[in-house]
Amino acid sequence: MDERLFSEDASHRADETWQIMPIGPMDLELGGHLPAVEIAYETWGTLSAAGDNAVLVCHALSGDSHPVGWWSALVGPGKAIDTDRYFVIGSNVLGGCRGSTGPGSLLSSAARPGGQSPLRLGSAFPKITVGDMVTAQQRLLAALGIERLWLACGGSMGGMQALEWARRDACDRAWITASAPAHNAMQIAFNEVARQAIFADPAWQGGDYEVGAGPDRGLAVARMAGHLSYLSEAAFEAKFGRRRQQDAPELFQVESYLRYQGKKFTTRFDAGSLVALTEAIDRYECVSLAGSRTRFLVTSFSSDWLYPPHQSRALAQMAREAGCPVEDHDIDLPYGHDAFLLDDQIQAGLVRDWLARP
Amino acid sequence: MDERLFSEDASHRADETWQIMPIGPMDLELGGHLPAVEIAYETWGTLSAAGDNAVLVCHALSGDSHPVGWWSALVGPGKAIDTDRYFVIGSNVLGGCRGSTGPGSLLSSAARPGGQSPLRLGSAFPKITVGDMVTAQQRLLAALGIERLWLACGGSMGGMQALEWARRDACDRAWITASAPAHNAMQIAFNEVARQAIFADPAWQGGDYEVGAGPDRGLAVARMAGHLSYLSEAAFEAKFGRRRQQDAPELFQVESYLRYQGKKFTTRFDAGSLVALTEAIDRYECVSLAGSRTRFLVTSFSSDWLYPPHQSRALAQMAREAGCPVEDHDIDLPYGHDAFLLDDQIQAGLVRDWLARP
Repeated sequence: MDERLFSEDASHRADETWQIMPIGPMDLELGGHLPAVEIAYETWGTLSAAGDNAVLVCHALSGDSHPVGWWSALVGPGKAIDTDRYFVIGSNVLGGCRGSTGPGSLLSSAARPGGQSPLRLGSAFPKITVGDMVTAQQRLLAALGIERLWLACGGSMGGMQALEWARRDACDRAWITASAPAHNAMQIAFNEVARQAIFADPAWQGGDYEVGAGPDRGLAVARMAGHLSYLSEAAFEAKFGRRRQQDAPELFQVESYLRYQGKKFTTRFDAGSLVALTEAIDRYECVSLAGSRTRFLVTSFSSDWLYPPHQSRALAQMAREAGCPVEDHDIDLPYGHDAFLLDDQIQAGLVRDWLARP
Repeated sequence: MDERLFSEDASHRADETWQIMPIGPMDLELGGHLPAVEIAYETWGTLSAAGDNAVLVCHALSGDSHPVGWWSALVGPGKAIDTDRYFVIGSNVLGGCRGSTGPGSLLSSAARPGGQSPLRLGSAFPKITVGDMVTAQQRLLAALGIERLWLACGGSMGGMQALEWARRDACDRAWITASAPAHNAMQIAFNEVARQAIFADPAWQGGDYEVGAGPDRGLAVARMAGHLSYLSEAAFEAKFGRRRQQDAPELFQVESYLRYQGKKFTTRFDAGSLVALTEAIDRYECVSLAGSRTRFLVTSFSSDWLYPPHQSRALAQMAREAGCPVEDHDIDLPYGHDAFLLDDQIQAGLVRDWLARP
């Protein structure tokens, strides 16, 4: 395997590496219907003869099918999620904008009167749930010949998907990090501000904007609001303090950082997807794991105020009450929510040890 | 004094009760110049013959000259800041939009070619500082015949003004609550997201929008982003949880709340003021109180993550190092930053006791 794939450049190469799996029509949990769904995916490693080493890595809000890029702290050859050992699958969620069917998917040009540029699904994309995301993943894995997951894992929104896999008793193990069984009011509030920033942009057009003419200014503000919640106060302080931008001393570095992150996001993300995915995770609520025999690892980070550790403790407790074997750890690191992406030491060690246990 | 003034309606009556004091031209700390500044103010009580009972109540970002309304937990007859006992002055800050000169102030119509509707100062309003706000307050008080403040007090942005009064050794006492000697990177980041939400609105026009045609959608998003930071997670949870809006069950209550707060704000606040004031407080940095003989009370709230208690401790320490008498308290209440406006018990008791000390 080419080591260069695991450099910092990896995420930029995802566009060229994913494959598309058509999974047919879908009836959705909230009543909507999609006539033809496609899921973008990538795989690493080899499925064992017994089919018992399949690992699905679920991505967070802005991720994609390329965990060896955005989660290189955990996923790759010799890493805790070892692509030399496991058959690792990454897939872009239903509703996403990195290859899978979502609000930004194009309708056939023939469907459009007037012959203008291809039209996005836009507001015709129905409301989806975390359950729908997982159903789409189950169909993808069935198409890949995988009957049962050995491990479902993910952080933040990815953790909710892994939890839903476990709730359906469709995986042997679930590792859920920096996540929650349901959003609290503050998490919903942060997502709502992001959505309102998009809706406030006149280019939003109720979701039915032209390709290339989306609500980029609103989307950038939405992303900046997100970044407020990804770092702890201490991480903001260590990273920026009150330092000024060298080439523009009237700006604080943290201001430049937010502007840069906002702008960059608009080059790779669709506003309609941000709305669809945040609504789906706000709506998600796992209240019981009764009937699941999944073995759980639940990790959280002491400085994560967006997904505070008490939510992970509640999740672990719910699994214990269902009689599932559970190991949970609150990791004392100062980086805030981003820690789940960054920590390649403590978290990786816990995952490695837990996976080694029979 | 009319008790009804202290009902919840009080703030809506401010428009009719404030007075205007012209304080002449101002040279500003960052090099700008204003040819004619007006400050909106109100007073309660009577100045003592010795002139030693003057109290200035400084307002936070969205406040005004009417503390008996927005700070009725602390200010009024028989309250900790007792308007029966002290001569209490409230004034709208320089740069504000509740009567004082700010970006929303109107130029004379004669100054405008074409005879359109009155033009706002807009981008012609120069960059201001917390120091400029205090200089304007000092001129107002001089015009009212007050030579020295007995007490300067305020919370959040108001606390920065009270601190600046103390730094200038221009008050006998300073009570500073839920504030900081300088913003950290996270506080700047929250303000920057609010500003970017305004700048993203095409109606912003670089600050030079027409009266009545301002960037209301951006301003609403800015206010929603602010509200994220005013409550603690526990307060969000107690207030909203995952409850749905009764008349619109597809909405979480917290979503309705944010939308309502955002919209309401646009009826009473100018986007240009929000930009000017947040930039001023981001820029403020008090590094020493050397030379001040002010007596300090510094209060903070354990659940305030926007102005975390360690900032108040640092402020108290700075005052101690300058040889000032200091009393500081971290108040254990779950409401978040808003606690400084709400707490009429613990905080009020501390203030009352401290004011009673010789």
